[in-house]
Amino acid sequence: MDHKLMLTIPGPTPVPEPVLLAQAKHPMGHRSGEFCAIVAEINENLQWLHQTKNQVITLAASGTGAMEAGIINFLSPGDRVLVGSNGKFGERWGLVAKAFGLNVELVEAPWGQPLDPEAFGKRLRADTDKTIKAVIITHSETSTGVLNDLEGINRHVKAHGEALIIVDAVTSLGATSVPVDEWGLDVVGSGSQKGYMMPPGLAFVSVSEKAWQAYATATLPKFYLDLGKYRKALKEDSTPFTPPVNLYFALQASLQLMKKEGLDQIFARHDRLKRMTRSAMKALNLPLYAADDCASPAITAVMPQGVEAEKVRSVLKKRFDIAVAGGQDDLKGKIFRIGHLGFVSDRDALTAIAALEATLIELGAEGITPGAGVAAAAKEILAAS
Amino acid sequence: MDHKLMLTIPGPTPVPEPVLLAQAKHPMGHRSGEFCAIVAEINENLQWLHQTKNQVITLAASGTGAMEAGIINFLSPGDRVLVGSNGKFGERWGLVAKAFGLNVELVEAPWGQPLDPEAFGKRLRADTDKTIKAVIITHSETSTGVLNDLEGINRHVKAHGEALIIVDAVTSLGATSVPVDEWGLDVVGSGSQKGYMMPPGLAFVSVSEKAWQAYATATLPKFYLDLGKYRKALKEDSTPFTPPVNLYFALQASLQLMKKEGLDQIFARHDRLKRMTRSAMKALNLPLYAADDCASPAITAVMPQGVEAEKVRSVLKKRFDIAVAGGQDDLKGKIFRIGHLGFVSDRDALTAIAALEATLIELGAEGITPGAGVAAAAKEILAAS
Repeated sequence: MDHKLMLTIPGPTPVPEPVLLAQAKHPMGHRSGEFCAIVAEINENLQWLHQTKNQVITLAASGTGAMEAGIINFLSPGDRVLVGSNGKFGERWGLVAKAFGLNVELVEAPWGQPLDPEAFGKRLRADTDKTIKAVIITHSETSTGVLNDLEGINRHVKAHGEALIIVDAVTSLGATSVPVDEWGLDVVGSGSQKGYMMPPGLAFVSVSEKAWQAYATATLPKFYLDLGKYRKALKEDSTPFTPPVNLYFALQASLQLMKKEGLDQIFARHDRLKRMTRSAMKALNLPLYAADDCASPAITAVMPQGVEAEKVRSVLKKRFDIAVAGGQDDLKGKIFRIGHLGFVSDRDALTAIAALEATLIELGAEGITPGAGVAAAAKEILAAS
Repeated sequence: MDHKLMLTIPGPTPVPEPVLLAQAKHPMGHRSGEFCAIVAEINENLQWLHQTKNQVITLAASGTGAMEAGIINFLSPGDRVLVGSNGKFGERWGLVAKAFGLNVELVEAPWGQPLDPEAFGKRLRADTDKTIKAVIITHSETSTGVLNDLEGINRHVKAHGEALIIVDAVTSLGATSVPVDEWGLDVVGSGSQKGYMMPPGLAFVSVSEKAWQAYATATLPKFYLDLGKYRKALKEDSTPFTPPVNLYFALQASLQLMKKEGLDQIFARHDRLKRMTRSAMKALNLPLYAADDCASPAITAVMPQGVEAEKVRSVLKKRFDIAVAGGQDDLKGKIFRIGHLGFVSDRDALTAIAALEATLIELGAEGITPGAGVAAAAKEILAAS
């Protein structure tokens, strides 16, 4: 049966009908008053979502483009930066920083485990000359389903006083609270195909006053991703380069839906989806790759024993049209990743768990009590209400 | 009356219904076999459109992002480049090259006039040490409606033998023939919201084997726009970063429509639209900003006398829901620009001309013969058939 795909990957995520249809409108001129009004509304709602008074800049790019912009706009060649690395995306921001000639020190943890805030604290306290210019952290590590302790790490950055905190919030923003102003987060990057309930194609960078001060003296070369050009255009509710106007229509619609649901409700829903998924996996004797106290609200990675991860994915896809993600790099073939991010309801989580149970039975997995996963998930719904 | 907007600007351009609706489909996973099949089809059709066997890389970016990628991937700091500048976009590529520390020599012509091929020939012939690494040219200068003599300039570049030719074909590709292989164009950048009959959000860079050889030793820093990463992913019909999957759906649909129409038909249609528009303006005594022998097939700039350009735009918009573009920078308020690019038919051109006539009458413009513009355009249709 065609057109029955259920997206249960960490992005692209499902998209509500009003958002899909908003994209299908005829384009308009990006220098028109009508479009400026849309930009103005979007900017206000992006600030609401980021819980900030900072400017939030919209780029035509992927999340990687947003993070590159978040790094290169505020630093100069040779600048010393600490990069947290405990998964594919942390690793990537280290590669971006190296590609631009920064002096990169990785602060590592094994994949599947969280970064240790004290490992940052130690280096930041030792840096009495204030040579560390930025600390780059992945909040929710999509490759492993680990939520790093951004608040804890940031406390050490704030105690240092000079370094900027640059955050990859690609799969945390819109899934869990990222209170930009309360925590004093300088640069926060995100992408539209995640908590925003939108297709991919737009990326976002929130920039603090302190980061703009660093921008003034930063010398890494840039043009398309030069955020100063976007800041200047934003003052006139505009963009420096032709924006993807149809994706802006979609963004306008999705932010309206998010505001209607409300931040607290959105975060509670993601927390519930996480608990439902994790409790179900435990009830099905499927080992979770990340521990409970560092579990991402957006994605749950499962490392099955006695049944092959790729076979689970294959049956889910062929028999139930459910796409779950596989592992990346060294984790390829070892884990599968269930996305519960964005436009995902309790019903969707129950559906995925029920289909997973049927898949495990088909694959002859041992130690499975049919129905146990769905029952455990249902209990979490009750506990949360 | 709402929802009646007619886009007659040089981009975004009108979009056919099947392309609009393709965007409204549910997203799919970008690492799925289904999506790889779409990427493979798109790549084949992009090569058809570019008349090349070269790889054509798709980016989530604006046309400026494509041109930045086309410059920074093949050059190193201090490299000497010639940049043709006779309008806002030529000027912009000079700024991009300077931002990345290239040694930029502008080869200028006044706005509204074409670049002189011999001005390039002289410098290229004098460069016996082969220090010129690239010549950067805007083919159709959107700000003025001038089509530069790319073939003539490129002949000098080929005689030089070392320098790459890097072309902004943003408003020429899909409007007039840009035979990449026949002319030996090394790098060609374009954007989706132009001849592609799509909304903005995708950008394209065609790369020759000679350019890939330059890539191997080029040292300007890059990551998101590092075309080598895209080339590697293309081998598996994939992308290095999350692509805007819904815009890919649209691109798949628009390229299918373009193939159905055929390259010769597409180019003949744009030539006819250009002739219709220019003959109408002449019949209405409206001075054309660019001369006939260097007129862009995508856009016609008009410098009205005795009636204010901005008033013409304002009445066209308010009374007829027709958006035409104004002038940029020094040309602000002095010209208006009629786009006839992409999904535009003879009927659309007649409509715009008829509405312009009514607008001129309303504004009390002198020397206007009512009906003369439409009659002249109709004659061009007949002459072309």
